[in-house]
Order: sequence, then C-alpha cells, then structure tokens
Amino acid sequence: MGNHYFLVDCGEGTQYQIQRFGVKRSRIDHILISHLHGDHSLGLMGMIYSYHLSGRKKPLSIYGQRGLDEIITTHLRWSGSRLNYKINFHHLNPEVPETIISSKTLEVISFPLIHRIPTCGFLFREKTKPRRINEKQIPPDFSNQDYQALKKGKDILDEEGNVKYRNEDLTLEPKKSRSYAFCSDTGYDPMLAERLKAVDLVYHEATFLKDMEKWARKTYHATTHDAANTALDAEVGRLLIGHFSARYKEVDIFVDECREIFPETYPALEGEIFEIEE
Amino acid sequence: MGNHYFLVDCGEGTQYQIQRFGVKRSRIDHILISHLHGDHSLGLMGMIYSYHLSGRKKPLSIYGQRGLDEIITTHLRWSGSRLNYKINFHHLNPEVPETIISSKTLEVISFPLIHRIPTCGFLFREKTKPRRINEKQIPPDFSNQDYQALKKGKDILDEEGNVKYRNEDLTLEPKKSRSYAFCSDTGYDPMLAERLKAVDLVYHEATFLKDMEKWARKTYHATTHDAANTALDAEVGRLLIGHFSARYKEVDIFVDECREIFPETYPALEGEIFEIEE
Repeated sequence: MGNHYFLVDCGEGTQYQIQRFGVKRSRIDHILISHLHGDHSLGLMGMIYSYHLSGRKKPLSIYGQRGLDEIITTHLRWSGSRLNYKINFHHLNPEVPETIISSKTLEVISFPLIHRIPTCGFLFREKTKPRRINEKQIPPDFSNQDYQALKKGKDILDEEGNVKYRNEDLTLEPKKSRSYAFCSDTGYDPMLAERLKAVDLVYHEATFLKDMEKWARKTYHATTHDAANTALDAEVGRLLIGHFSARYKEVDIFVDECREIFPETYPALEGEIFEIEE
Repeated sequence: MGNHYFLVDCGEGTQYQIQRFGVKRSRIDHILISHLHGDHSLGLMGMIYSYHLSGRKKPLSIYGQRGLDEIITTHLRWSGSRLNYKINFHHLNPEVPETIISSKTLEVISFPLIHRIPTCGFLFREKTKPRRINEKQIPPDFSNQDYQALKKGKDILDEEGNVKYRNEDLTLEPKKSRSYAFCSDTGYDPMLAERLKAVDLVYHEATFLKDMEKWARKTYHATTHDAANTALDAEVGRLLIGHFSARYKEVDIFVDECREIFPETYPALEGEIFEIEE
C-alpha cells in the first residue's frame, strides 16, 4: 500500500526471499501471522533479530495468535537479546472478525478460518477515497480558497452564501477502493464467501486436487474446487492459489481445476507480483 | 563419520542448504547447537517439523544449552504438534568439558568457549582403531581361528601355549584416529590451544580482521590473528575460518591474514567439503 509494506505470514527463509526479490525490508512496519504452524511463522525470529542487527529504531507491529508472544519472548530471553526497537504485539481474535489496523486510507480486518489450530485470514481494504477535481470544469475565477473547499468535498458558495458551484459538478468519482484478502490454511467454509464479497484479489490455499476432498476435510485444508467455489460465490475479481501439497510436482493442474469453476485463477508463484488497479 | 552425520549448529535455512548440497538428512541422528544466538539455532525448529512431516520414526538426539529445550517445547505446544518420533535432549555444560557422545569408534566432547551467552565448542575424536592384519606376513598354516585371534589383538599360541607368532609381527599400526573441532563464536582464549592440541582440522571463527582486536574483545569474537595463533599454539593440522562480519565484502583478506601466522588456513565456504585422511 504505497510506501507501506505489510508482511503476511513469515515462513523459514523469508528474510532471504525479501533480499532475493529486492524488497526494502525497512518499509515493513506490520507483520501479520495467520497461525502458528512452522511454514507460516518460523521466519519471524530471523526478521526480528535482523532488524535489531541492522539498527532498526522504529517500532514493529506484530499481529499473531496467542502463544506467538511467548515464543518471541522465550527466544529473546535465552539469546540474551535486548532489542533496540519496540515490538507492539497484538493478539488476533480467532473467534470473530476484528479490525486490527485502521488508518486514514486503509483498514485491515482479521477473520476466523477453519484449521486444526486457531487461524485467521486478513482482509485489506482501502477506505473511500476523496472525489478528484476535474480540472477541465474549473472556472477561470477560481481562487486557491475555492480549491481547498472543493478538495474537502464542499460546494463553492457566492458572497451571499448561496451555492455557486456544486462540488459534484466540478469533481469526478473517487478512484476505486481496492481490496485484497489472504486466506492461509483453511478447510472449506461456505460462510467465507460472505466475508470476501467483491474483494478484488483473494489468495486462498488449495493444498489438494479436487479428488482429495475427503482428505482435505480431514486435514483442514482446501481443494482446488473449494477455493474456486468460494471465489465464485464471493464474486471476487481474481483468485490466487497456493500452498500446494508436496505430493504434486506440477502447478498447472491446480490452476486448470480451479478455472473449471472460476476462470480468473492464478498461481501464487515465488516472486510474482499481482497489482490491483484503481 | 562413516554413514552417521552430525549436524553442528543450525541457522535459518539449514534444511534448504541440506537439500541444496544433496545431504541425506535421514542420516543425521545428532544435532549439536553451540549457543542460542539466532544465526546458530533458528533453523532447528524447521528441521524438527520436517522430520515429523517426512515420517521420521527413529529418535533424534539434540545437544544444546539450557533454554533450547524450552524453546522447542514452546514451539511444539503452540503449534499443536505431537511429533511421531522422540527427541532426546541433552543439556550442554557451558562451564567444563564433558564427553557428550561415546560410541565404539568415536567420542564427542563439549567444551566452554568465551562468548556473551553460554557457548560450547565440540571436539570429535575417533577412538584408537584396531591394528590391521598384514596379509604379506601371514604364514600358510594360518587357520580361521588364528585370524580371529589376530584381529582381536592376541598373539598366536602353539599347542603347548607358547607364543608362536607375536601379534605385532603380523599386523600393521592402526590407521590414524582422526579429530575435528568446531569452535563457534568465541573471544580469544589462550587456554583453548590446550584443548585443541594436535587436532587434525579445527574450525575457529574469525569475525574480524586483525586491526579490530579491541572491538573483537568487546563483542566476544575473534580476529584472524586470534584464530591463527590458537591454531599455531595447538599445532593443529588445518585451520578453517568463518563467521566473517558482514562489514567485509571479501574473504581472501581473512585467509591472507591468518596465513601470516598459520599457513594451513582455509575459508569455510558454503558447500565446501574438507576430508581428513586416515
């Protein structure tokens, strides 16, 4: 989001990948960890130590399930480390949706997923943006003061206090408020589509192919068709899939199976960038 | 050592490197962690989980400082994991040398190093090997029973119980008992040379160049000359150096500085193999 980066889950080697793909790690001020399985969390301590060694001073916000704070403090205690920056730790609520971040331009909402241990998904949503000034419609006698009033969404008044120009006549619709959701490990949840309604880009795990539905239910993971049906029901823009079981060697078949139901499906491959247009 | 692998220290990404360099991880039954700084220990949980996921059944022995057991159990508890193999955890003694492994052919001794937190080095030493039968000297009337006696180091007796052949006349000196020592993070310790006396191959950290001696003392690390002087005093076979500070871009100068004092110095580069001849 602009110059602010959010790191969502952090498996072993994340700091190596961050370097490999040229991401400025100093721009990360928020790390969100969906749950405490190793492939989603074991890279966090390395990030924390590396920030310390590179002289980070500004606080780092970490959002995680109960227990992650104990894991962090246990590591720090036994390594004899005293960080030179502050960690603001926020407990996620794995039971109900909660707004965990809210700024002028963005809100982030955590919501429960269905997994073997407490797990959250995350929805990133831009707030409604201001209307844009339509330069072509601006009259020649427009003052700087008028401009400022227009920017704030106000009408322009004449000396007697009557509306001279209506705001909506001199401005264009605001740019679209974009949204992204990350659904890490989760079993199929028919209720999830409601939460993801009309989201532009949704990452949803697809650990198994469709013929493994029983096994997926048992292990609290999703199949390709689970992910695609959720995307279809939610009428999302695009679906990203990942977390493919190591038993499979090819990614294409996962994408193909999803596209049987939801054509706008793409694989979340290492280093790929997915932009959302305004 | 033969088909048995010992993993000594385990930074983040170790399992990735193990795969990259084609090491059979199933052959690792002993993991030794010198101390609890992240660059020496953060890869351990990933190894533990991966062994679980790949169906390991045989026990894994882990040797570490006090606290490593708490770190492991805290991770396992919050991830809801119950391993399908047993971990045998051994506390290292950071105060005095201790034999931590002793088999028919090998012993491993931990010994204290000088660092900011409790830290151990490890000495691997083959036990004295049996003398080898010198086939050229074997007389034609030698029975299978005589062979077995010879192998056990016994003399061969005649029917009256007198020595017919002396064991040492029919056998050769045993092969050399090889030794390797790993001195992870440590400040300069003049007493260390005694511990490393005549060891074939010694890894000793060399975080800083020789002009940084003061800083090295302050941070409980070693300079090139510290490592080389230790190797010289101990009369070791070869010296491996590593743990170079990230402030330097070149490794050659570290090796050059060590060779001013101890010519048989080599850099411990990723993936390099150093064999010790018998």
